[in-house]
Amino acid sequence: MTEQRIVLDAHTSDPVTMGWMQGLPPAPEKRILAAAAGHMRFPTHRHAFSHMREFLPSARVSRGGGAVWELPESPRDDLDSVRFTTLDDGREMSWGDSLAANFTDAILVLHRGQVVYERYFGVTRRDTPHIAFSVTKSFVGTVAEMLVEEGRLDPEAPVGDLLPEMLGSGFADATLRQVMDMTTALDFSEDYTDSASGIGAFSLALGLTPRPAGYTGPTDIYAFLPTIVKAGEHGERFTYRTCNTEVLGWIVARTENKRLDRVLSERIWQPLGMEQDADFLIDSTGMPFAGGGLNPVLRDLARFGEAMRCDGVGHGGAAIPLAAVESIRGGASRTAFAKAGYVYLPDCSYRSQWWTMPGNHGAYAARGIHGQGIYIDPVAEMVIARFGSHPIAASSGNDPVSLPAYRAMAERLMQG
Amino acid sequence: MTEQRIVLDAHTSDPVTMGWMQGLPPAPEKRILAAAAGHMRFPTHRHAFSHMREFLPSARVSRGGGAVWELPESPRDDLDSVRFTTLDDGREMSWGDSLAANFTDAILVLHRGQVVYERYFGVTRRDTPHIAFSVTKSFVGTVAEMLVEEGRLDPEAPVGDLLPEMLGSGFADATLRQVMDMTTALDFSEDYTDSASGIGAFSLALGLTPRPAGYTGPTDIYAFLPTIVKAGEHGERFTYRTCNTEVLGWIVARTENKRLDRVLSERIWQPLGMEQDADFLIDSTGMPFAGGGLNPVLRDLARFGEAMRCDGVGHGGAAIPLAAVESIRGGASRTAFAKAGYVYLPDCSYRSQWWTMPGNHGAYAARGIHGQGIYIDPVAEMVIARFGSHPIAASSGNDPVSLPAYRAMAERLMQG
Repeated sequence: MTEQRIVLDAHTSDPVTMGWMQGLPPAPEKRILAAAAGHMRFPTHRHAFSHMREFLPSARVSRGGGAVWELPESPRDDLDSVRFTTLDDGREMSWGDSLAANFTDAILVLHRGQVVYERYFGVTRRDTPHIAFSVTKSFVGTVAEMLVEEGRLDPEAPVGDLLPEMLGSGFADATLRQVMDMTTALDFSEDYTDSASGIGAFSLALGLTPRPAGYTGPTDIYAFLPTIVKAGEHGERFTYRTCNTEVLGWIVARTENKRLDRVLSERIWQPLGMEQDADFLIDSTGMPFAGGGLNPVLRDLARFGEAMRCDGVGHGGAAIPLAAVESIRGGASRTAFAKAGYVYLPDCSYRSQWWTMPGNHGAYAARGIHGQGIYIDPVAEMVIARFGSHPIAASSGNDPVSLPAYRAMAERLMQG
Repeated sequence: MTEQRIVLDAHTSDPVTMGWMQGLPPAPEKRILAAAAGHMRFPTHRHAFSHMREFLPSARVSRGGGAVWELPESPRDDLDSVRFTTLDDGREMSWGDSLAANFTDAILVLHRGQVVYERYFGVTRRDTPHIAFSVTKSFVGTVAEMLVEEGRLDPEAPVGDLLPEMLGSGFADATLRQVMDMTTALDFSEDYTDSASGIGAFSLALGLTPRPAGYTGPTDIYAFLPTIVKAGEHGERFTYRTCNTEVLGWIVARTENKRLDRVLSERIWQPLGMEQDADFLIDSTGMPFAGGGLNPVLRDLARFGEAMRCDGVGHGGAAIPLAAVESIRGGASRTAFAKAGYVYLPDCSYRSQWWTMPGNHGAYAARGIHGQGIYIDPVAEMVIARFGSHPIAASSGNDPVSLPAYRAMAERLMQG
């Protein structure tokens, strides 16, 4: 018996080439069915990540009716030649080649606020909302910092005080700060390949992945979160767990007394002059998936990054208070972070749902599985926004290529 | 044993008062679950009709990035006093009182292109997309007329030629014109209260209503339509059947070689300078629900009506060819229509998915269940756009009040 393994690269898995959901009707073998989790699996996810609202219920994050924050364009044709060495196997690679290596769907580089590079691949276009996965967390963390700055949230308050529904759960005695910085100690594993993991069970409760017949677990986020139990002591080490952001999103919504989609519209989308409404995946109660459900267009991701780079000042004035931005940039405990063992992120930290990299020009990033990201390099005055559909549901699938690519791009831009 | 019947009127069923889906989390008794068809039932539908994308998968009908067609405002304060007599029980009623009588969610009156009256109720606001139900059909019929006018569709072509997939079905030997004017003869009943009716079975295939356990029927529109069989002879009488529009939408998509959401964006939304993207409910293959799945904002409904009133000229030029508009206004066979026995619509006809009322100033209308509508009175130079959430899923629930109200409003406006 011969075993054949078919390996698809970015070109052979291109969703246009593959023809997913194309045709009127699509041929049976070209259909992606949410009921079969096709929207969450490679290679069909290469189409689905740019069409999530077509598979799942969603809410609108409204841009309102204001003027768009125009991004001036001065494209450079020398950037595909930027070269770097991959972090894993030490290959030499060009920026141009890195895009396919990382299954990039869309990427944009801002330098001093100018669009110097912008590319779209597959089914993703400038006006296509794409799932941002955990980049969503950084939006939520930033709004939480704004509420702290306004004195409306006390970072030292225990979750049980902020959300009485969480009394009795493992979160009860964690502080808001520990939730924001993900130093809670919980029995919740973030293994995307295991449906029995914490994140797997959460995904069933949320409805992101289809529930098996006879499923009797929780059917919304509110019902799921109080079931999480403690494992260890809070505050000692960073452990990346999406459930923290779900609790944080709930706290933000409770504080603002409105749903998170509306909060993001009022706090971020309208003030920043975003060019498109975003789609926000929701559960059966209408609660947005704070840890990963936001679907913006690429340029709106870039606008958020640029506002952060510019001390919170975006389109026509301060949108995010400087103190909130500085709290994020300042980072958190590197000791706590180091315990998580991220090979490609030495001396980093996780602060208010952002990844801070003090060793790299004080860069900080919003990062999502399958290659979503905002990367801000303050020294190089650079912001990179990216969407991807990498086969691997972990940043470690992208980091060996994307991190040195971003650093090399920063160096090139600093040369002028 | 005492039987209690609780009757809810527009005020007692107001979705804000009822508090549907309000709270973080919503209380269990305030939740609307798509899995229990709560989005399709009174009184919960009073909330859901303004939030359909939060219950079901949807595609975006993009407005593009162009300028908005601004609607000048000159509000009049004398219009609530317009009086009329209801068609059923001959009650005297004022326009102001008619809004609650008809469970109106939003209504706008244009006179000579000026907004003279605009009201929003319950959870529906100016920027809230609301399901238009069968008003969707008139968008599809108008685009079909445009394709006929361009010579790309032959109204006399049989459906079997246009859609080989429909050979063997009851539609095969029906002409495109018969589909557009709904004079096909089919075994398909349009009874919204019977899940075993044609429309009930269609709704299950589409996924608009939840499928019972063990459901083995079709799971998309493409699979459902070919199962419809013939009953009688095509062309003899008008019978209102949504399945005609599903076939028409498929023909339009096949002709344009793109999905209907994209067709409507390019043909209507962008040229008319709509102010918001619309949401379009879709099936599991991504096919839009052509017969009733469009969710625009009220003002965009009004813009479409105003463009029709103005011979197809909207925002900055001709968007719809005059010949297409005239084909619709010209109406169809009144004899064929009369056989359907609409008590409140004597001497009317149904042409290209529009209802024409030659006896009333040559008015024509797009009409959807639960009170959706566009009503165009060319003589009074008036367009009315309306969203509703009437308990009754039939135009007959609204017509006795809304038709004389519209006529009385036209008379008032003609007085100056």
